[in-house]
Amino acid sequence: MNVESLHSGLDTVWVVLTAAMILLMEGGFALVEAGFVRYKNNVNIIMKVFADITIGTLCYYVLGFALMYGKDVWGAIGTSGFLLHGDLSHLNFSISIDTYWLFQAAFAIAVISIVSGAVAERINFRVYLLYIVLMTALIYPIAGHWVWGNGWLGSLGMRDFAGSAVIHALGGFSALAAAIVIGPRKGKFTSKGSSTIALPSNLPLASVGAFLLWFGWFGFNAGSTLTASDVRIGHIAVVTMLSAAAGGAVTLVYTLIRYNRSDAPSVINGSLAGLVGITAGCAFVSDGAAIFIGAVSGLLMMAATNWLEARKIDDPVGAFPVHAVSGMWGTLATGLFAQDGGLLYGQGWHLIGVQVLGLAVLCAWGFALTWLGLKLINRWIPVRSTEEEEEIGLDISYHGIMAAHQAHDFIDDEESLFNEVLREQEERKL
Amino acid sequence: MNVESLHSGLDTVWVVLTAAMILLMEGGFALVEAGFVRYKNNVNIIMKVFADITIGTLCYYVLGFALMYGKDVWGAIGTSGFLLHGDLSHLNFSISIDTYWLFQAAFAIAVISIVSGAVAERINFRVYLLYIVLMTALIYPIAGHWVWGNGWLGSLGMRDFAGSAVIHALGGFSALAAAIVIGPRKGKFTSKGSSTIALPSNLPLASVGAFLLWFGWFGFNAGSTLTASDVRIGHIAVVTMLSAAAGGAVTLVYTLIRYNRSDAPSVINGSLAGLVGITAGCAFVSDGAAIFIGAVSGLLMMAATNWLEARKIDDPVGAFPVHAVSGMWGTLATGLFAQDGGLLYGQGWHLIGVQVLGLAVLCAWGFALTWLGLKLINRWIPVRSTEEEEEIGLDISYHGIMAAHQAHDFIDDEESLFNEVLREQEERKL
Amino acid sequence: MNVESLHSGLDTVWVVLTAAMILLMEGGFALVEAGFVRYKNNVNIIMKVFADITIGTLCYYVLGFALMYGKDVWGAIGTSGFLLHGDLSHLNFSISIDTYWLFQAAFAIAVISIVSGAVAERINFRVYLLYIVLMTALIYPIAGHWVWGNGWLGSLGMRDFAGSAVIHALGGFSALAAAIVIGPRKGKFTSKGSSTIALPSNLPLASVGAFLLWFGWFGFNAGSTLTASDVRIGHIAVVTMLSAAAGGAVTLVYTLIRYNRSDAPSVINGSLAGLVGITAGCAFVSDGAAIFIGAVSGLLMMAATNWLEARKIDDPVGAFPVHAVSGMWGTLATGLFAQDGGLLYGQGWHLIGVQVLGLAVLCAWGFALTWLGLKLINRWIPVRSTEEEEEIGLDISYHGIMAAHQAHDFIDDEESLFNEVLREQEERKL
Repeated sequence: MNVESLHSGLDTVWVVLTAAMILLMEGGFALVEAGFVRYKNNVNIIMKVFADITIGTLCYYVLGFALMYGKDVWGAIGTSGFLLHGDLSHLNFSISIDTYWLFQAAFAIAVISIVSGAVAERINFRVYLLYIVLMTALIYPIAGHWVWGNGWLGSLGMRDFAGSAVIHALGGFSALAAAIVIGPRKGKFTSKGSSTIALPSNLPLASVGAFLLWFGWFGFNAGSTLTASDVRIGHIAVVTMLSAAAGGAVTLVYTLIRYNRSDAPSVINGSLAGLVGITAGCAFVSDGAAIFIGAVSGLLMMAATNWLEARKIDDPVGAFPVHAVSGMWGTLATGLFAQDGGLLYGQGWHLIGVQVLGLAVLCAWGFALTWLGLKLINRWIPVRSTEEEEEIGLDISYHGIMAAHQAHDFIDDEESLFNEVLREQEERKL
Repeated sequence: MNVESLHSGLDTVWVVLTAAMILLMEGGFALVEAGFVRYKNNVNIIMKVFADITIGTLCYYVLGFALMYGKDVWGAIGTSGFLLHGDLSHLNFSISIDTYWLFQAAFAIAVISIVSGAVAERINFRVYLLYIVLMTALIYPIAGHWVWGNGWLGSLGMRDFAGSAVIHALGGFSALAAAIVIGPRKGKFTSKGSSTIALPSNLPLASVGAFLLWFGWFGFNAGSTLTASDVRIGHIAVVTMLSAAAGGAVTLVYTLIRYNRSDAPSVINGSLAGLVGITAGCAFVSDGAAIFIGAVSGLLMMAATNWLEARKIDDPVGAFPVHAVSGMWGTLATGLFAQDGGLLYGQGWHLIGVQVLGLAVLCAWGFALTWLGLKLINRWIPVRSTEEEEEIGLDISYHGIMAAHQAHDFIDDEESLFNEVLREQEERKL
Repeated sequence: MNVESLHSGLDTVWVVLTAAMILLMEGGFALVEAGFVRYKNNVNIIMKVFADITIGTLCYYVLGFALMYGKDVWGAIGTSGFLLHGDLSHLNFSISIDTYWLFQAAFAIAVISIVSGAVAERINFRVYLLYIVLMTALIYPIAGHWVWGNGWLGSLGMRDFAGSAVIHALGGFSALAAAIVIGPRKGKFTSKGSSTIALPSNLPLASVGAFLLWFGWFGFNAGSTLTASDVRIGHIAVVTMLSAAAGGAVTLVYTLIRYNRSDAPSVINGSLAGLVGITAGCAFVSDGAAIFIGAVSGLLMMAATNWLEARKIDDPVGAFPVHAVSGMWGTLATGLFAQDGGLLYGQGWHLIGVQVLGLAVLCAWGFALTWLGLKLINRWIPVRSTEEEEEIGLDISYHGIMAAHQAHDFIDDEESLFNEVLREQEERKL
């Protein structure tokens, strides 16, 4: 046993374990989203996440990874490594290429799971499947290439350590576009101009999800070092914790003072906003900056939630406030607080300038391609559920089942009302 | 600090962390099974898993490990290491013997948890406790010895990296035997010959379990290297992910096309089938083979589910289709696709022949001993719940409690209806 | 890459991963507690845990860590390291100071989460927030300093590897004091002297929590080595597993024999008691001792539960029996069974004497300061919810929401009954 092979073994173990943690975040997304939406759409949203991790993984394997990390052409796109074959010799890590792929695949399916929440309760399931392909095979990988794959934004000096911009802002703006194209849930905004409430179906379920996300985020941020010998790992984990704590604490206290009650969904989303906010700068900023970034993330998340309501944009789980807004803030904050290069450390406007440019490009890209993609698909298949499907709930409509069934008895195949509903639906569809 | 002690530290950390991940899979089993069965048996199935990890662990400590990994006699059985004492000098790893035990104990309790699902909703709880002893102290360890403990199947060249055969096929055939001996749930198969539906009590709960299982499986497969310096770790994790994705994707798309709806329980079981299928060959096959193995696992799982229904065998959570069928397929697929030794790599019939032989032996062993064991126990204690216990649900019958209780008030000890039911039952039992 | 930096990288990775596992235990606490209490207080108890990990983390960052691990004065208190600044050169690890802080922060918030359960369903939420500050900034850090921070108890030779005394006994006695000060839930003890039952709202949810706690405990105990080169890591994980298994098995079998049913909450708490019991001695005792410690922990937990009921002290989730009683036993058992220093290994009375002294001091400290703290706070804000708040449930009272809401429709902002309740409440409070 020599030092080199030990080093490579340690790095592999580190990346595999953190990749598994990021994959567990998919459970987190599924459960937070299921807990936040109405009961009749619980299965659907979980199945959408299963589609993300099954179909999305395969798309990223076949196409996405190559476009993102293949041999660069003009700083614009990767061109090798489809199905992990072809020349990838420019990827030079202590871990193997396919281990690197696994970690990146976990990132790719996180992006699509962000969008999943914003279109909850009303997207046509088949359309969502097509959109997964679009996102994991094209939209995300190409943008990712620009920053992380030897592309032009990376060359300009943009810094986004674990993806406040590349993952969260891009995912969040895609979510916004999708929410706008698909329109609000039926009944969400009343004629009088006020919005109505959809109470979370299951907050304990949502908090299981939040705990899994929080846990997985240590893998997300610290694992992005891709090597265990990176001396920043400890610090990254620490600022991740501090920012999440600040984001949650500030929303907890704010809602307590402002509304005279600590609002549970806000606290959950506030913690997640803190995690999103620190994702870009976790390797670059101080503890104190991390607390500030987290606290501001929580407040911005709340402001953005109100802004969406006022604009009558319906984002059932807060994908845009949590991911896009905190992601933007985190990317800008890196330009301000990075100890090496940040404006507030007296290192000039270059970094913050690049961060603003990069953000603008990534957000516009995510928004535009999602908008175009869904509009295009809509010519072929309606992107939105029918009124009836939405009314009876997507669980019955697309999966022929309800989330929970607490009767004690069997249902006879030939007689049940439930089967009748299903049969009717199938007939209608044929 | 020298390289050797660092190496040993790294290996220990790797095995302890992956063992913890496998143990978390018990949570996965418990929740998938609880979510799939009827509400009135939720507590019972979770308690069965608690019995697996408490009683099963102790049995494997006292007896099982020694029979499996003790000093070999005639390739048939291990004979030292009871209570981890005695001569185990033939076990020569960079990790300590007891660390090795921990990892193996996590495997042993996985086997019994597979059976747990097939006998759900109708097994006598006390009988299940006895069966845990039988499985973790005898059935699994002896068979495990043959393949992994210097036994005759291993000597013939059988290859089962992390247990498609030893864990899943054996567990799955034991589950089949148990399901047959105990018979179908009351009401499952009607006189007219059709089967009736038991809707899952809680799909979000089942999917929490599925996510935990998926996460833990990275420990299950990659941890089976038992050393962090094994250069295959990254690849193992990658093919594990690809096969699971393929298994889930194929069932998602298949049920969408065939039934016009994506069937949630099938997608969950399809992903798990993909995980089971790759478990034997994860260290030996290519990415492409892994995707093929996973996809076929998903389809076979669905076919086997229908086959069981047609045969009127009642396996409430699909233990046989997921574990036995995908486990068999994964073991055979290793004989076909192993890059070193596989038939399709032009390396002849030896490996596939041994795989077939080993499979036949392991499946027959699991089936026969479980059949005999339960028949034997049945002379002493009825293996099946009484009709009344089954009717009111095993939660009340064996644990005196229901899974959820959403009333807001206290129940007075002396007056409640609930207590009356309990009291009556106790009287009946005495 | 040289050996030293590899060593430091491995240790960092080990501590970060185990810290993340301990943080996931907060999810475990939240879900066990939510599952055990009545439905109307589910959100509240989860929000209390969110307050622990957000506010508690920040308090431990600003004040607690410095008092615990800062430069020692008179063996009594730490005096440097506020906000992780100042001289901490006496902390000399292979990991960085802030990585060390992260691990310790995870411990600090575990202590407060223990108390959370005992005051469930009736503490004033704002008071709980103040108490978090008190516990994580003062009570726990000062006591922790005595044992782990170069303080007087550590100097005397007290041994508490991962905190049976410092975390669990102290937390459990604080929980007891809080439960007494706040008094039993309305309706818990009837005039006739018998206690009434509050059935768990959701046992599957509680078991999700238990599995997360069990998983995290491997990080809790084995991670306390703080270095991956500690040769005891494997053994620590093994005895942790054995003790938990013994604790669960003994309660499972005991309740089966004694009450003719395996009591699910007892089995869950029995496993947790086994985990608490081995926490002090995991690095010092043998496998056999671990099984004994775990089994006794389970039985003591049950006895203590009955003792509390008889004394009419209301501890809704069993925080005192699980944490205080098993924690005391585990600390004493270390004095008995430690292979180096234990009484039963013929090494005299010194160790056990110090353990008894340390226990007495820590338990008294936790009890007294919590008592005084809450009494003091009570002069300013009532520590207990109003009768009406308790009656309608803390979820509505403090968070304006219910845990689950399974209606299919939107609620109009201006008309809903639900909003009326909220409005009324707010008016009352202003």
